[in-house]
Amino acid sequence: MKSFEFLSIKREKKPRTSGLTMVLDKGLGLETASSLMDISGEYVDYLKFGWGTSIVHEQDIIKSKVEMYKSHNITPYTGGTLFELAYTKDKLEEFFDEAHNLGFPAIEVSDGSTDIPHENKLECIEKAKESGFEVLSEIGKKNPILDKELSIDERISNMADELNAGSSLIIVEAREGGKNIGIFDSKGNAKEDEIDTILNSIKGEKILWEAPNKNQQVFFILKLGNTVNLGNISSDEITSLETLRRGLRGDTFGKL
Amino acid sequence: MKSFEFLSIKREKKPRTSGLTMVLDKGLGLETASSLMDISGEYVDYLKFGWGTSIVHEQDIIKSKVEMYKSHNITPYTGGTLFELAYTKDKLEEFFDEAHNLGFPAIEVSDGSTDIPHENKLECIEKAKESGFEVLSEIGKKNPILDKELSIDERISNMADELNAGSSLIIVEAREGGKNIGIFDSKGNAKEDEIDTILNSIKGEKILWEAPNKNQQVFFILKLGNTVNLGNISSDEITSLETLRRGLRGDTFGKL
Amino acid sequence: MKSFEFLSIKREKKPRTSGLTMVLDKGLGLETASSLMDISGEYVDYLKFGWGTSIVHEQDIIKSKVEMYKSHNITPYTGGTLFELAYTKDKLEEFFDEAHNLGFPAIEVSDGSTDIPHENKLECIEKAKESGFEVLSEIGKKNPILDKELSIDERISNMADELNAGSSLIIVEAREGGKNIGIFDSKGNAKEDEIDTILNSIKGEKILWEAPNKNQQVFFILKLGNTVNLGNISSDEITSLETLRRGLRGDTFGKL
Repeated sequence: MKSFEFLSIKREKKPRTSGLTMVLDKGLGLETASSLMDISGEYVDYLKFGWGTSIVHEQDIIKSKVEMYKSHNITPYTGGTLFELAYTKDKLEEFFDEAHNLGFPAIEVSDGSTDIPHENKLECIEKAKESGFEVLSEIGKKNPILDKELSIDERISNMADELNAGSSLIIVEAREGGKNIGIFDSKGNAKEDEIDTILNSIKGEKILWEAPNKNQQVFFILKLGNTVNLGNISSDEITSLETLRRGLRGDTFGKL
Repeated sequence: MKSFEFLSIKREKKPRTSGLTMVLDKGLGLETASSLMDISGEYVDYLKFGWGTSIVHEQDIIKSKVEMYKSHNITPYTGGTLFELAYTKDKLEEFFDEAHNLGFPAIEVSDGSTDIPHENKLECIEKAKESGFEVLSEIGKKNPILDKELSIDERISNMADELNAGSSLIIVEAREGGKNIGIFDSKGNAKEDEIDTILNSIKGEKILWEAPNKNQQVFFILKLGNTVNLGNISSDEITSLETLRRGLRGDTFGKL
Repeated sequence: MKSFEFLSIKREKKPRTSGLTMVLDKGLGLETASSLMDISGEYVDYLKFGWGTSIVHEQDIIKSKVEMYKSHNITPYTGGTLFELAYTKDKLEEFFDEAHNLGFPAIEVSDGSTDIPHENKLECIEKAKESGFEVLSEIGKKNPILDKELSIDERISNMADELNAGSSLIIVEAREGGKNIGIFDSKGNAKEDEIDTILNSIKGEKILWEAPNKNQQVFFILKLGNTVNLGNISSDEITSLETLRRGLRGDTFGKL
């Protein structure tokens, strides 16, 4: 039961199909993560075990964290770099087996750090789906120079293909920093025309925009409404983002 | 019992009337906050449940956090944005009732996100006092453009009026970021002449300066002494601030 | 037991003689720190109780944290500022006694905030060793102006002397911020030629480079390999650093 609800904009409850929030876990302790989910887990839809972090932690702790997140109706998934390592080393089957073993219901398929021919990426999405995973796929390169070589038309065409191949959401890369990458310039400001172009071709509810910094979250909420899907949210900022979505913080107060 | 106290400047113990520290809680888990207060709660005087965060959390958890903070002789209070929402929606009575119900001994009255005629703000402070709350009132606008329209004379005159109306402390707005707002320029440096002007008219012990960044905390401690009241301190920085106040960190070592 | 180890570069296990990670504790709660060490303590070799923080916390909590860190085969030690305070106040013996009483197996000897004649610093290192501590000694001034007066030749000569006096590791100062200090310029970029000059004279495995920012960690790993010793790592970044050392994050993926 909440207090003060008479002061707030309503929000769709989970499971939601829009207004999704994806949070980045960089290695939280189990008890700390659990304490955080007790207070704010209802505002988290997806939880990414960042990049290859799942390699360095004990299975028992990962399993416990995965279960804990699922108990809050959150979908935990493995970071894209883990998939890319498995692809590069030709170990996809082993990777799927281990991810199942740990209890992950979803994985991310990306090509941010490697060259994966587009057809192969689509095939991987299909294989992961067949293996029983929900797939989130990411568009964009982690290296800013390579990322800039990717034209907006190619991005859009890839997005459509990956949705067709079975991805449930397309993640637009912005890393943890959110600067000089994808739709953000070197100061972290969004390139509004590119976003418009993407949204002319791809349904907004199928896109999850990585927006690690508060000004980026505010930008997207004011531009696309509070049902925009946002990702790479720091675990410290879960409550802040929810208040931004509901006009409960100065930046969006009275503007929604 | 402390070790190494022979190495340290003394500090007044709680309850203090100066050298106050106000910490910003953006949505900490109960257990995490409790663990933090066990080690550093003695250095926290006021604890702000930031902006409208209290709207999105379960009553039970808020009540538990409020009780836990009070058990450490800390005064928890609701963020100003919550008051402003209630004022805007003409729900002040309901807001007071809920805040009492949750156990808050204090509230913040601000007009950072809304236009509230000065007379009405004073009346709200009086009403909150009559309703049994300690009142902290904040001066400043969250929007930097509007904030700059507020002259220093008007700020000072408002401060005096709000203290007369019953506020126990005047908070000088700097937000979580601390840049381009109030007495901080766009780089986060303090405008020393404005601070001097304010202190010519208002007693320093009645002012709580928001100073989220370490260089700002250092500035205030070196300029005004370690009994300056500082606020919007990140929960990660409680111990750091206490060491700055006591010359136990490089920035203030040997300078107090 | 780990999952996905077939995807990863191997790393030497503790106790290690290189590839050391030193983490900065700015005042973590006991339970929060314990939860964090359960998931990532195997990647921490040294744990610094930052600057003078040990003065302001209760003995019982410090003892419990020291024990907890030791149970993970981590060497906890007192920050250099604490030593400098004791030196300045002529209380070295009392300081050693208290540090022993709290269970610290190691201390840092530095002169970042004070002028300590070089001969005296060496003598302090020897005394601390005789008193039973492992000693880490730090080179560099916290004040950037003073820091710049220290020539590279003098730095190197001091390093050699301090190792001879019994220091097990030389820490190269970068503070918590990592900018405009030591081997970092005002943007936080490393001065590569100075690093090369140092390494021409001092064995790399005897140096622990403070590198608080991710780009600095990446720089050192790519320049000197993943067995470089790195310090002042934020407690939030322990897992991230381990993945950088093992090519499991985009920044070092495929480059090790």
